[in-house]
Amino acid sequence: MGNEQSYETAVRRSNEIKADLAVHPQNYTMLTGDRPTGRLHLGHYFGTLKGRVELQNAGIATNVLIADYQVITDRDTTEHIQDNVLNLLIDYLACGIDPDRTMIYAHSAVPAANQLMLPFLSLVSEAELQRNPTVKAEMEASGHELTGLLLTYPVHQACDILFCKGNIVPVGRDQLPHIELTRLIARRFNNRYAKVFPEVDALLSETPLLPGLDGRKMSKSYGNAINLSMTAEETAQRIRKSQTDSERRITFDPEHRPGVSGLLSTAAICTGRSETEIAEEIGDAGAGQLKRYVTEAVNTYFEPIRARRREIEEDLDYVRDVIHEGNRRASKIAEATLQEVREAMGMVY
Amino acid sequence: MGNEQSYETAVRRSNEIKADLAVHPQNYTMLTGDRPTGRLHLGHYFGTLKGRVELQNAGIATNVLIADYQVITDRDTTEHIQDNVLNLLIDYLACGIDPDRTMIYAHSAVPAANQLMLPFLSLVSEAELQRNPTVKAEMEASGHELTGLLLTYPVHQACDILFCKGNIVPVGRDQLPHIELTRLIARRFNNRYAKVFPEVDALLSETPLLPGLDGRKMSKSYGNAINLSMTAEETAQRIRKSQTDSERRITFDPEHRPGVSGLLSTAAICTGRSETEIAEEIGDAGAGQLKRYVTEAVNTYFEPIRARRREIEEDLDYVRDVIHEGNRRASKIAEATLQEVREAMGMVY
Repeated sequence: MGNEQSYETAVRRSNEIKADLAVHPQNYTMLTGDRPTGRLHLGHYFGTLKGRVELQNAGIATNVLIADYQVITDRDTTEHIQDNVLNLLIDYLACGIDPDRTMIYAHSAVPAANQLMLPFLSLVSEAELQRNPTVKAEMEASGHELTGLLLTYPVHQACDILFCKGNIVPVGRDQLPHIELTRLIARRFNNRYAKVFPEVDALLSETPLLPGLDGRKMSKSYGNAINLSMTAEETAQRIRKSQTDSERRITFDPEHRPGVSGLLSTAAICTGRSETEIAEEIGDAGAGQLKRYVTEAVNTYFEPIRARRREIEEDLDYVRDVIHEGNRRASKIAEATLQEVREAMGMVY
Repeated sequence: MGNEQSYETAVRRSNEIKADLAVHPQNYTMLTGDRPTGRLHLGHYFGTLKGRVELQNAGIATNVLIADYQVITDRDTTEHIQDNVLNLLIDYLACGIDPDRTMIYAHSAVPAANQLMLPFLSLVSEAELQRNPTVKAEMEASGHELTGLLLTYPVHQACDILFCKGNIVPVGRDQLPHIELTRLIARRFNNRYAKVFPEVDALLSETPLLPGLDGRKMSKSYGNAINLSMTAEETAQRIRKSQTDSERRITFDPEHRPGVSGLLSTAAICTGRSETEIAEEIGDAGAGQLKRYVTEAVNTYFEPIRARRREIEEDLDYVRDVIHEGNRRASKIAEATLQEVREAMGMVY
């Protein structure tokens, strides 16, 4: 898992699928999701949300899960979870995820999908769980001791993907070991009992990660992220406060000028122009002019999304209806899959 | 866990509860169960089944689970599981477990109870899972590599006990680490979120383990067990074939005369007499006479149970109704508990 050769294979396979998606959208079921730990920001939007909406609009069966149980893989509290989940939903809807075409549901609301943990845990060894490099990295990053849930969450992810017979999952390279484990679980189950589950492939992201305003990794804790839920004024303020440098001439140089370059990347992704083109246009006008340009670019791009967001925010009954309906649909699918699993295993009495 | 001092504490607590059971039966909810891996034998009957029926008849809320998912903790197949489950049920009913008073259900049929695995796995560390001496012993005995399910099954057992708010669990000393883990999970959940779960105590067995006919541990694979489902003739045949020794005089000496002593223990438990009393009565009449005595004792004791068993066996529709009704009741209870868990964790949207 995770070595260069299997990465190359995954990239090739991912590219084949991308070419086929437009031709045979009906052959694909996509599963993806988010941990509801805070507000979505521009990194989430350009990194994943935009792509989900494109897949949805291309006619792919899309499933988006709110991974509320994943919040407690490496923390001892579920503080603000209700607020986070509702705001995540509002972000989804504002960005164009259409609940009539995309199933949106929460982990904690679909018992039949979660039950798959039991048979699936029997298909992997403790050694295989321990070997997962992503779990180790996440544990170290969290500073929390390794919980039973963090150790086994790749198996839970297999439940997420397989309960709805997902066969494509948009991921970054670091998530490939999880996809490998899901393939292994599906293959072992099918060999041992009966063919129930599909082969899953990773849909590897091509978009480079959008840095934060200061050029570092975009993160809530660095204060370098612009949330979808911010107002135009809050956006302007955050950009105004971001760190640049004393050189007046604007150039794109991520290594030596992270602040200026982070701003340029933000403007570039919102305008569809290149960073160097924008840098040349601003030239000697300095960081103040750059910041005004970035502010204008972000606020223009997100104005329609934010307008929708404000509307949706006013109608929480609708937001709750969306999640209830998604949970209901997910439970129906999960119960049907679980019944297939019981029959394959002979657990029908 | 498992040290001498905590064992003494568990014994004291178990004795206190035993004294209180008759006085306040309404304060107790008992959970116990079996892996459906074969037919129940005399060891199961005298070691657990008889006690369950007594608790049931004393007015304790009793819950008996058929642990079908535990079959795959250390094996790669569910072969014969349907047959094993139905026969287990028939054994239960024949022995006096009354489905109107005792809830009988199967693991695989209660998704809401299984979902508790997720929050519960977040409450224990990987180190705590690895430390469980019983899991290690079971893994070694099975000769199978440690699966994710065997590593985590004590957490699954906590789900079994806590979903129905069980507060007493009949166990042997080797199972005490599991009870400890259940207590830990309940305590951590209650501290972290809200008081949902009771304190669980072990009800330690006082009956010494009934040996097999040859004096070794009673086991299907040794051919030294008498199943409840055997006929009187099959019972006679198995006893006739059991190994004794060349000394004609019958004495009770488990260490030096395991075969003769195993037979004596079997007769003793079925007649309520002591092993030495029976040995003295038979005296110099030899192993043939002893075997006739044991056969008579076993067949007399089990005749009414086996007669009921034959009746029930003829009515598989009734047997299926029993498990369906048990699953339905268990699901209702599990869904109510899961809802409490969601509310305590704030996962209500």
